[in-house]
Amino acid sequence: MFAQQTCARSRKEPILTIENKFYSQEVHGPYELFSVGDFELEMGGKLRDCKIAYNTFGTLNAAKDNAILFPHMYTGTHKHMEPYVGEGMALDPTNYFIILPGQIGNGLSSSPHNTPAPFNMAAFPNVTIGDDVRAQHKLVKEHFGIDALQLVVGWSMGAQQTYEWAVRYPDMVKRAAPIAGTAKGYPHNLLFNENLAAAMKMDPAWNNGWYTDPHAVHVGLRRQARIMALHATCPEFYYQEAWRRAGFSSLEDFLVGLLEGYFLPMDPNDLLCQLWKWHHADVSRHTNGDLTQALARIKAKTFVMPFQEDMFFPVNDCEREQKLIPNSEFRPIPSLWGHFTMFGIFEEDKKAIDNVLKELLAVPINVARS
Amino acid sequence: MFAQQTCARSRKEPILTIENKFYSQEVHGPYELFSVGDFELEMGGKLRDCKIAYNTFGTLNAAKDNAILFPHMYTGTHKHMEPYVGEGMALDPTNYFIILPGQIGNGLSSSPHNTPAPFNMAAFPNVTIGDDVRAQHKLVKEHFGIDALQLVVGWSMGAQQTYEWAVRYPDMVKRAAPIAGTAKGYPHNLLFNENLAAAMKMDPAWNNGWYTDPHAVHVGLRRQARIMALHATCPEFYYQEAWRRAGFSSLEDFLVGLLEGYFLPMDPNDLLCQLWKWHHADVSRHTNGDLTQALARIKAKTFVMPFQEDMFFPVNDCEREQKLIPNSEFRPIPSLWGHFTMFGIFEEDKKAIDNVLKELLAVPINVARS
Repeated sequence: MFAQQTCARSRKEPILTIENKFYSQEVHGPYELFSVGDFELEMGGKLRDCKIAYNTFGTLNAAKDNAILFPHMYTGTHKHMEPYVGEGMALDPTNYFIILPGQIGNGLSSSPHNTPAPFNMAAFPNVTIGDDVRAQHKLVKEHFGIDALQLVVGWSMGAQQTYEWAVRYPDMVKRAAPIAGTAKGYPHNLLFNENLAAAMKMDPAWNNGWYTDPHAVHVGLRRQARIMALHATCPEFYYQEAWRRAGFSSLEDFLVGLLEGYFLPMDPNDLLCQLWKWHHADVSRHTNGDLTQALARIKAKTFVMPFQEDMFFPVNDCEREQKLIPNSEFRPIPSLWGHFTMFGIFEEDKKAIDNVLKELLAVPINVARS
Repeated sequence: MFAQQTCARSRKEPILTIENKFYSQEVHGPYELFSVGDFELEMGGKLRDCKIAYNTFGTLNAAKDNAILFPHMYTGTHKHMEPYVGEGMALDPTNYFIILPGQIGNGLSSSPHNTPAPFNMAAFPNVTIGDDVRAQHKLVKEHFGIDALQLVVGWSMGAQQTYEWAVRYPDMVKRAAPIAGTAKGYPHNLLFNENLAAAMKMDPAWNNGWYTDPHAVHVGLRRQARIMALHATCPEFYYQEAWRRAGFSSLEDFLVGLLEGYFLPMDPNDLLCQLWKWHHADVSRHTNGDLTQALARIKAKTFVMPFQEDMFFPVNDCEREQKLIPNSEFRPIPSLWGHFTMFGIFEEDKKAIDNVLKELLAVPINVARS
């Protein structure tokens, strides 16, 4: 019965869900909702009537062997990946069927802000990258009937999902491109993650997750944006004022215009759900904590693609992992945009990423492997 | 009349000064107070009866030409520099007269928490690195009668003071060793600085600087500690769990034990006073914003000594400046401790720094220069 109700805007009624117009097709473009059903979670707990929002491009061929999966990063939705899909690009919808699955907790899929009581908001259960990938597996396998993916590619938390796919379903993933992300969390990255979460939680308006207005926590969201700005690009980016080329007129104009503006419309509990997932991503839980064993499971031809100046996921961490992946290559991409290179704000960065993906898709796959 | 009163602990009386036992000789060891008198500040405003706390080692010789000045970093006092003073070390008190001057705002010198109303706490005026150096100049020249310093050396904000000395009083400074700091602020560093300040200000107990208990802002102080932890060392430090060698049993044990514990006893307004100084340090204000001209003024033999993995003051920034200093050498020091290398927690780091300082002090100074 609760499921029928939406946000109770009067403080006298119990809060059920938060209405936030940001999480809509008007803002994020068209998408479908896939019903995962009642979905038991890795850490315990269950999502009733779990849905994941997704979009697709291109057509699944009769053999169902032309699919690519492209999950998204923290704060993102399918929309953020769409600039990498296009005719003449690596992810060309004239050749491939490209699925952009939404994370649980991204605001369009089942998320703290849109889940009815009693599992709403701060009571939303902890979700893992493994849960996301299992939900996506249902979409890919049960809904579309796809047995193998030509490529799984993702940036940041998308790379975490990519690793999870390649380790969990090694026979399904023919190629993998984890971009600027790692197969498990390393302590400096986790400390950064904790600082992002704490920025929101320090705002008294957060109220342990029980804010009543969708944008009440705006000071905490702005604070998170400015902590993110510390690691989003790199010191040389700021020194060279590279933001000028992106149309900003001052450092403050960049920080407020790009970063604060980006976070402001979002739902803090949805973000915290994603941050918790990011924090706990670890493919080595499949092998009792042995990362070497976990990464050795990967059968995909893998290009490990860190961004050279990345302060979220330093190249060292990515390279150490690459060396543990049997059929892999190390393909770092340089850009002053650091972790944010993937936003493709400089056309040449987008092109560089696209070229590496083209190269990976051109690698013939030894069918005997899968 | 207000000057006679100390902290009013009852909420019914006006707050005058904050009593904080951390800022005492019991905690920081012996020191002297030098009266600068009524001191007009660079940014306007005036400190009445301004005092700077300092300590000295060794004996000033008859010629008064064996003095070394060693100002301190953010959060520090003279005490933090003392491990670099000792027989057989570069700063050997058997040869040199070593002055460790306290910054204004360090809690022992005139500071927001110990200044009487109406200029107490949040009403304490903005102080610059230039003010510190002018106050230290009075101590050195007027109080001790010293005309030239064999060496000015400082770490982090101490390096800012070192640069200010070398640019402002080029004939007085024979050698300079700015360690892990820059002559002006660069944007990434300033963004970090802003995040440290904001961590305290986000704590509702901060109350715009008008907290009534000295340790009321402990949540903000802990938060600052954890943001500082992001840049204090470097990702590899955390990856390699280098904190184990320092006696910590887990990452959390390190973060709470070293960093949170370090900040907890401090006064937020005192820290904010120092952060503002750090943020506005810039020797190029002596030359209408022309850094090249400002650094060209330096006559000291200068060793620019960044820490290789420093995330506060990256080596690139330090090297660019070094190239603008006429009689200088670039002497980066590697350590996983990054910016915190100067704490000398690993004996070999302390030794490495000491060795470079020994080398600098061994450079014969061409008297014709000064």
